[in-house]
Amino acid sequence: MYFASDNWAGAHPLVAERLVKAAGSYSVPYGEGQTDRKVQKTLSEIFERDVSVFFVGTGTAANALSLASLARPASVIFCHPRAHVMHEGGAVELMTNGGKLVPARPCGPGASKIDPEGLTKAIAPYLSTDASVGNRIAFTLSQATEAGTIYSVEEIAALSSVAHSAGLKVHMDGARFSNAIAALGVTPAEMTWKAGIDILSLGGTKNGCWCAEAIVFFNPDDAAALPVLRKRAGHLFSKSSFISTQFDRWLENGLWLDLARHANGMGEKIAAAVRASGHARLAWETGSNQQFAIMSDEAAAAIRAAGATFHDWPAPDGFDGLGPGEAIRRLIACFATTDEDVERLAALL
Amino acid sequence: MYFASDNWAGAHPLVAERLVKAAGSYSVPYGEGQTDRKVQKTLSEIFERDVSVFFVGTGTAANALSLASLARPASVIFCHPRAHVMHEGGAVELMTNGGKLVPARPCGPGASKIDPEGLTKAIAPYLSTDASVGNRIAFTLSQATEAGTIYSVEEIAALSSVAHSAGLKVHMDGARFSNAIAALGVTPAEMTWKAGIDILSLGGTKNGCWCAEAIVFFNPDDAAALPVLRKRAGHLFSKSSFISTQFDRWLENGLWLDLARHANGMGEKIAAAVRASGHARLAWETGSNQQFAIMSDEAAAAIRAAGATFHDWPAPDGFDGLGPGEAIRRLIACFATTDEDVERLAALL
Amino acid sequence: MYFASDNWAGAHPLVAERLVKAAGSYSVPYGEGQTDRKVQKTLSEIFERDVSVFFVGTGTAANALSLASLARPASVIFCHPRAHVMHEGGAVELMTNGGKLVPARPCGPGASKIDPEGLTKAIAPYLSTDASVGNRIAFTLSQATEAGTIYSVEEIAALSSVAHSAGLKVHMDGARFSNAIAALGVTPAEMTWKAGIDILSLGGTKNGCWCAEAIVFFNPDDAAALPVLRKRAGHLFSKSSFISTQFDRWLENGLWLDLARHANGMGEKIAAAVRASGHARLAWETGSNQQFAIMSDEAAAAIRAAGATFHDWPAPDGFDGLGPGEAIRRLIACFATTDEDVERLAALL
Amino acid sequence: MYFASDNWAGAHPLVAERLVKAAGSYSVPYGEGQTDRKVQKTLSEIFERDVSVFFVGTGTAANALSLASLARPASVIFCHPRAHVMHEGGAVELMTNGGKLVPARPCGPGASKIDPEGLTKAIAPYLSTDASVGNRIAFTLSQATEAGTIYSVEEIAALSSVAHSAGLKVHMDGARFSNAIAALGVTPAEMTWKAGIDILSLGGTKNGCWCAEAIVFFNPDDAAALPVLRKRAGHLFSKSSFISTQFDRWLENGLWLDLARHANGMGEKIAAAVRASGHARLAWETGSNQQFAIMSDEAAAAIRAAGATFHDWPAPDGFDGLGPGEAIRRLIACFATTDEDVERLAALL
Repeated sequence: MYFASDNWAGAHPLVAERLVKAAGSYSVPYGEGQTDRKVQKTLSEIFERDVSVFFVGTGTAANALSLASLARPASVIFCHPRAHVMHEGGAVELMTNGGKLVPARPCGPGASKIDPEGLTKAIAPYLSTDASVGNRIAFTLSQATEAGTIYSVEEIAALSSVAHSAGLKVHMDGARFSNAIAALGVTPAEMTWKAGIDILSLGGTKNGCWCAEAIVFFNPDDAAALPVLRKRAGHLFSKSSFISTQFDRWLENGLWLDLARHANGMGEKIAAAVRASGHARLAWETGSNQQFAIMSDEAAAAIRAAGATFHDWPAPDGFDGLGPGEAIRRLIACFATTDEDVERLAALL
Repeated sequence: MYFASDNWAGAHPLVAERLVKAAGSYSVPYGEGQTDRKVQKTLSEIFERDVSVFFVGTGTAANALSLASLARPASVIFCHPRAHVMHEGGAVELMTNGGKLVPARPCGPGASKIDPEGLTKAIAPYLSTDASVGNRIAFTLSQATEAGTIYSVEEIAALSSVAHSAGLKVHMDGARFSNAIAALGVTPAEMTWKAGIDILSLGGTKNGCWCAEAIVFFNPDDAAALPVLRKRAGHLFSKSSFISTQFDRWLENGLWLDLARHANGMGEKIAAAVRASGHARLAWETGSNQQFAIMSDEAAAAIRAAGATFHDWPAPDGFDGLGPGEAIRRLIACFATTDEDVERLAALL
Repeated sequence: MYFASDNWAGAHPLVAERLVKAAGSYSVPYGEGQTDRKVQKTLSEIFERDVSVFFVGTGTAANALSLASLARPASVIFCHPRAHVMHEGGAVELMTNGGKLVPARPCGPGASKIDPEGLTKAIAPYLSTDASVGNRIAFTLSQATEAGTIYSVEEIAALSSVAHSAGLKVHMDGARFSNAIAALGVTPAEMTWKAGIDILSLGGTKNGCWCAEAIVFFNPDDAAALPVLRKRAGHLFSKSSFISTQFDRWLENGLWLDLARHANGMGEKIAAAVRASGHARLAWETGSNQQFAIMSDEAAAAIRAAGATFHDWPAPDGFDGLGPGEAIRRLIACFATTDEDVERLAALL
Repeated sequence: MYFASDNWAGAHPLVAERLVKAAGSYSVPYGEGQTDRKVQKTLSEIFERDVSVFFVGTGTAANALSLASLARPASVIFCHPRAHVMHEGGAVELMTNGGKLVPARPCGPGASKIDPEGLTKAIAPYLSTDASVGNRIAFTLSQATEAGTIYSVEEIAALSSVAHSAGLKVHMDGARFSNAIAALGVTPAEMTWKAGIDILSLGGTKNGCWCAEAIVFFNPDDAAALPVLRKRAGHLFSKSSFISTQFDRWLENGLWLDLARHANGMGEKIAAAVRASGHARLAWETGSNQQFAIMSDEAAAAIRAAGATFHDWPAPDGFDGLGPGEAIRRLIACFATTDEDVERLAALL
């Protein structure tokens, strides 16, 4: 029973098979091959707009290069204090040549979101023309959030509006983009550029691929620096078709959404099991594949001893729902999670 | 007929099959999985020494992170003027935080090598204790070289000795490491740490893998900074077993050497075809899978029109073997090159 | 009446005269001259310990290079959220090659200080061995603080203890070091290395010099990287004696402390005037040359119209002492502030 | 007798006196003061064009920030292999975020210059649109050169033309700008923007100032990034009038040119003394304040023993004018060099 993260499973069989099939052919390398171009076209269709697409190997690279594409000297980027970009070993700082990530005040369930007021307040000191504040360049939000919650389209639009008014571009960390789309039941266009998103890190890895991440620019002009930035970061794969081939199958016939719906559904079953448990309760509601349960240390130890893997999750600042000896535990479902896995967990709970 | 590079083919069927087989299992992520550890062990056996191994996605990342592991402020690194590291979009410069690559005078066939005298001369101005010269940290050489030639073990040892005497570590760019081992018929240990190599970029991608590169430290102490450096560069793959699984099969039962011998053999057949041709001649002898032929523009155009892909190669400084309308053309064989491919090329030549 | 900052005045006459006197002589350049060495010796005496001293041109450079001397990949540095280092145009981020400044929770008068609990909490998430958190390297505090308050020796020692326990070095931004020494009446040794400070930015510029800042290492081993770092930053002055000559006079016969006492005294007179005023009140007590007064916009406008220069100061988070139309105004005295200046201000208040 | 460099003397008495006079006044800090603006205006007059001026503390900073103002990811900059920028402790690499300095083939007296053919050849491999070559941004030349020679206006124009055709901006390292102007007898405009120079590092330090360097942009649009870049580098001096005041006097009534003519004249007297000597001969003719003499080790030792300071100078590649036991010695005159100094040297020679 693997609930530690959605990156412990391998790849979906359909994706893996497509890779094997492609292994025997030659392809122009460095992102210029036939499949590379095909996927770029598919994504333009999915997003109902001509997009520029750059394949990279990891979500860290996708995020850091997205932001680096906007970099100016002493770049300032606004984000959630627990955004993934805040803790990627300095990747954003490296690739933006020393940029600064400025946390905005969190709010909402699990203190997982940013709202327009918090963003406005974070930006304010950086509106100065004084050289000492550097150059503000972007606001980045995670969808789904690191705490499993999901911004509504309206929430995204409101944040984008604040950001754009302050001269910022808006980036979405979509490591779990497909989970969010599946949960909201909106179109990819509605959740991104129609709501003000300028650049998207589109993640396939956590939802059925081995290693497939794409940077999607909704305004191709923003992508001018990306080819060199990607090469400079060592993320221009010679055999780039191994990434695009995964995306090719993943995006085919809605597989990506089927897998996300499955993972979210398993997440909901986990939530139901927690709600029904006498030994655990939900820390907050998420509506996605990530669930957060409050358990005592004894309960957690017992369930782990029975074979379930999961991580503890530091309580948000100001979270007051914990009793003595209790902590928050993160339980994640993924494309490969089975009913049996969840039933065994439910039984333990 | 693909002779443009050894990164146009996909993956060897045995490697691809192993990936599919692994796709169904869960694995601890971020380089801590079972296969990750197994390959590290296998490499320690192959190199007859306990090595520290870090998987990354590209040769660019392997080289840049290898050198970054040694970085100090204003790092100075000595290399061949046409070494791959010189032209990777500033990857070494980025990851060493602004290091400087200093070219040594080239020599040998195709001006493809560095010799001890050239290296000594390049280092000399940087032996000063003056802050203006920065901190010299490493010498890096490519084996096989970018021009297809191969350093003998003695040549490597002599260069390492010069470098070590100057307080430098020695890095080997082994993008075509297996081709060199296959050509020399020596052990991996003999061609690396026994000859003074401290850090190796071991490339699987050009010889049968999709995307499999490893940084191998022969002195694990040198690796202390690597975990953060790799994360910072976005090269810590969550599903790192995607890479280690490829290596696992590639290293099994000597597949890597079989494939390299095959590629070198095809290279030798190409060389023979060039030698026998009335329209082309070898620019220099290589003994590996990379061959360099002098052809007129007309001959090259005709062969390309007949379906062969290959790149032109800029003549080395001082190369005087070209007649009017002639240029050097690079012809590369790989694990997937077939006898038929080469026979068709031979017929065209 | 200049109360905007302590960097609007030029240089003290005695310092300027010494510079003129030195202008006619030759000196070995690049920090190796006779006066450079003399001042290093003087500082060792003043600090009662052998210190390594590096002259630079600005406080920004002193702070950024101090922290850069400790840099590792993805450096993490803890500080006050309004510390000067947070807003120096990305200088720390640049010179530490992409380091991250992590704010600790502020406390005390004007929310100007950090306490051990706040520091401990800020450090906690970075104690992980996970590569994603980078490498924690330092805690930096400003003495006097940016809000004019002064840490007691005991407070400094308690913070240093927390930092050292977490494997951090401790840096003091001493742009107003002399004001703090003068206010506390302790020795330089007591306020620095005896209280756990490892590296000091010692500022002369704000207290009577034109341009004289020094990085003082209490453990010379920490300084190994500094010569190259300083050259790399363009802060190795050829005619470095123009800096050391200023320090030479400034440190002679206690001039630096006389000037600091004068500035603090003028600060106390400003405070007294504010306390006595019907149109202003102190936002908090400082005990140094920096004072913070709450005034209405009308009062501030009137006083400015009468010829006084001063800046507004953003209210600390959670500061609830402001009425409608009121704001905090910073009033700074310096070595050159005269009784007449303050009397005129008092009359206006 | 100080002939080691033109940065051993202090400051000219008139410059020093002006500083003392200014020490007593207050000034708006951070480059916005009255004198800062006055000098910017004076320079616009001297250059017969509206220029943007930024004061910094060192020539290293001026050069590195000039080039940083043009930086893009993986910047490539072309220069002379012994240009000062090549050996400034990685300053250019730092401030351009990992730029690469590519040497062009040197030519001319003392191999001190670049010619259009050498520059064209250096640029050629970087004209590719491949991401691996990065982004070419600039060509930088030193006037006077590091070997004392001086480019004619026509030579500069020809190099600028090559650079501009390749999409590069042209930067002039004018650490010894005034010596070159004095030697050529042309106007500052003729030697800079009229000959295609886009950005100038204007050096006062080597010719009578303590510490006065300015970055002069002939196209103010190029300067957009400079304010933050300068702050980020710690080169925004609070009391910036400290620098502008030096320039103010230095530029007044042609003092800067008088001092340069004096230094050049003393250089010519040194050259004459060398020509007349039986123990030394000129390595090449310069026409400026820097002279290069070939002397035996015995002769050099004797002259040093008699009290003259000077440095050895590494022979240029391919220089064949040295006999056994001989080396090149650099003899530099400056604004403070006296007839007596040179006569004593002449007597020793």
